[in-house]
Amino acid sequence: MNSPALITLTTDLGLKDNYVAAVKGAIFKQLPEARIVDVTHEITKFNAFEAAFILRSVYRDFPEDSVHVIGVLPEETEAHPHLAIRCDGHYFVGTDNGIFSLLFDKRPDQMVRIDLKRDSPINTFPTRDVFVKAACHLARGGTLEVLGQEVESVNAKAMPKPVLEPNQIRGSVLYIDSYGNVISNISRKMFDDIGAGRRFSISFRKPGFDISDLSESYSDVIVAERLALFGSNGLLEIAISYGDASKLMGMEVNDMVSIIFES
Amino acid sequence: MNSPALITLTTDLGLKDNYVAAVKGAIFKQLPEARIVDVTHEITKFNAFEAAFILRSVYRDFPEDSVHVIGVLPEETEAHPHLAIRCDGHYFVGTDNGIFSLLFDKRPDQMVRIDLKRDSPINTFPTRDVFVKAACHLARGGTLEVLGQEVESVNAKAMPKPVLEPNQIRGSVLYIDSYGNVISNISRKMFDDIGAGRRFSISFRKPGFDISDLSESYSDVIVAERLALFGSNGLLEIAISYGDASKLMGMEVNDMVSIIFES
Amino acid sequence: MNSPALITLTTDLGLKDNYVAAVKGAIFKQLPEARIVDVTHEITKFNAFEAAFILRSVYRDFPEDSVHVIGVLPEETEAHPHLAIRCDGHYFVGTDNGIFSLLFDKRPDQMVRIDLKRDSPINTFPTRDVFVKAACHLARGGTLEVLGQEVESVNAKAMPKPVLEPNQIRGSVLYIDSYGNVISNISRKMFDDIGAGRRFSISFRKPGFDISDLSESYSDVIVAERLALFGSNGLLEIAISYGDASKLMGMEVNDMVSIIFES
Repeated sequence: MNSPALITLTTDLGLKDNYVAAVKGAIFKQLPEARIVDVTHEITKFNAFEAAFILRSVYRDFPEDSVHVIGVLPEETEAHPHLAIRCDGHYFVGTDNGIFSLLFDKRPDQMVRIDLKRDSPINTFPTRDVFVKAACHLARGGTLEVLGQEVESVNAKAMPKPVLEPNQIRGSVLYIDSYGNVISNISRKMFDDIGAGRRFSISFRKPGFDISDLSESYSDVIVAERLALFGSNGLLEIAISYGDASKLMGMEVNDMVSIIFES
Repeated sequence: MNSPALITLTTDLGLKDNYVAAVKGAIFKQLPEARIVDVTHEITKFNAFEAAFILRSVYRDFPEDSVHVIGVLPEETEAHPHLAIRCDGHYFVGTDNGIFSLLFDKRPDQMVRIDLKRDSPINTFPTRDVFVKAACHLARGGTLEVLGQEVESVNAKAMPKPVLEPNQIRGSVLYIDSYGNVISNISRKMFDDIGAGRRFSISFRKPGFDISDLSESYSDVIVAERLALFGSNGLLEIAISYGDASKLMGMEVNDMVSIIFES
Repeated sequence: MNSPALITLTTDLGLKDNYVAAVKGAIFKQLPEARIVDVTHEITKFNAFEAAFILRSVYRDFPEDSVHVIGVLPEETEAHPHLAIRCDGHYFVGTDNGIFSLLFDKRPDQMVRIDLKRDSPINTFPTRDVFVKAACHLARGGTLEVLGQEVESVNAKAMPKPVLEPNQIRGSVLYIDSYGNVISNISRKMFDDIGAGRRFSISFRKPGFDISDLSESYSDVIVAERLALFGSNGLLEIAISYGDASKLMGMEVNDMVSIIFES
């Protein structure tokens, strides 16, 4: 028999409590030969947006057919059903609290509402009691149809998108990473399409920090100097060499990041 | 040959230093096909009580015959021998600093004092130098008898137990999880037995926070509202929807949680 | 086929972001049967010295032929090439920012400059885009020669070494662990060679904390008492029983630790 597909976990459960271990124990009970990778358990509590940003930045780094379990705001309600989804050759299992609309830029290939017999009367821990069962089924090579009825749409939330003008891109900060690097929603394609090789200046809410060229690596500038580059997830990133740009430049999620091109 | 049983790790070693990796390296040296799951390494330093609470909440989620290594206050002394224990179809390896009496509500099926030739003259790291050897032996399907002589009892510590009266349960807080959920020592069985369907009011050290009904999930109440439910480990839990009950209600471990039933 | 060798990861990537998962996903893409162990991802940002201390303390605990990936200051520059190294029966993959001279006390057996076709135009994430490829090759049993040309030397940094005098050892603090234990650069061999059984007194920058005997375990002294012992990595360590020596004694990395022997 082939090895089962990888199962990854993206949750806000934290690493101290017994919760992540409960999920992993449940996986190994159902799939002794499971291979599990933690994406992160340090999502800011209840922050589906952050979970979506992190998982969408990384899922393509995993082998095809990997099963990505999302345990953030997992409780099922009438408005927020449990779903299993196929997109880009990967599987995703979680609660439709809006996160799936944030994860993908296109309509997923297939979406089903998970309808499984519950092993437990407990409603509060579907990551263990529902998602694990669905994920193990998919990791074994099972089909989505077995998990439940097809659904046509998901709850819509939107990643903030940059405003594109002839001589300007007005974007915003999506995420601050653990280095304090400030990651915007401006992609290299936008930059190339609008900029077309013109000179530019990147500016921020706080004046005095403008940046007018792109670096290729964090070590391109001297220590403590600020820089802009397109990072490993393809988005424009503001950093400080050997420093914390977020703190030193006072930047936070949702802050404006604007590029003005020479006209 | 069958796969070896799972080995889980519950320690206060933290994730930054080289210590957890040393334990895992030692396991793989002895059992190359080992499967290891971290329960947690973030136990509050030297807190056997917390380790017991976390491990007793989760060990049943793992497959039978799993070997649970406990690395909290692991040094062996005359009064605190190294033990390997069989209980509920699982194995436990650690130091008898009182933790085993906190882990189980009944007498374990079998307990032996670990008496293995040491590979190292170092006394300070038995989790690596003693427990790994015992755990790998058990994970391979070895017996407890090989590890040492049977012992009849363990050092006694006690989880605080609620006081049960005809119209009242006086319990206390066992644990605060990373969400700030406040987990008491009051089980659903106690609640059902004493309450027998009567109206009730849950009260706390600080007045003004009384709760008079049970929720079934964290999303049963509106945002920032407090709630009580029986959580995934079967214990009465006080939470705030999308909030941190411990901080907002000023509650700490050992604080009183009291239920008064209508008489 | 045999199992591939273990791959370990030592980085400053942190556990919250998508970066560690990206590295693991990339490993599983290339080596589906990989076994990965996190040494730590909590290295202080950009601190190659700390990474070297942690990895040199632990790599021998892993099976021979393990491949240790180091993702700290990983960007390649003219002065800091990507290397793969064989030493002590283990493999090491990382950037020659000085860390390799800190890792080993001797010349490694073999060192090559990694020269692989890049899959990605991105320079900022060689841990994923370069080191994983080299590590998977080595874990499969591949040779260093395939990865690139041999190099003769590495960039030199030096771990601070104690000054040895007839009646005195003047050492310093290399690392503070998560317990607050203060780990010096004084080895048992130095202590035995210079001391030769004489009485001694260990003193620190701050007066009043002198220690004049060695303990064998942390529980040798009463609670809150300070002690000195040779810890699990063979170095003289200052600790406080059930306490945080670093905080309580005001000690930091690079502080002086001095032993004066009775003459």
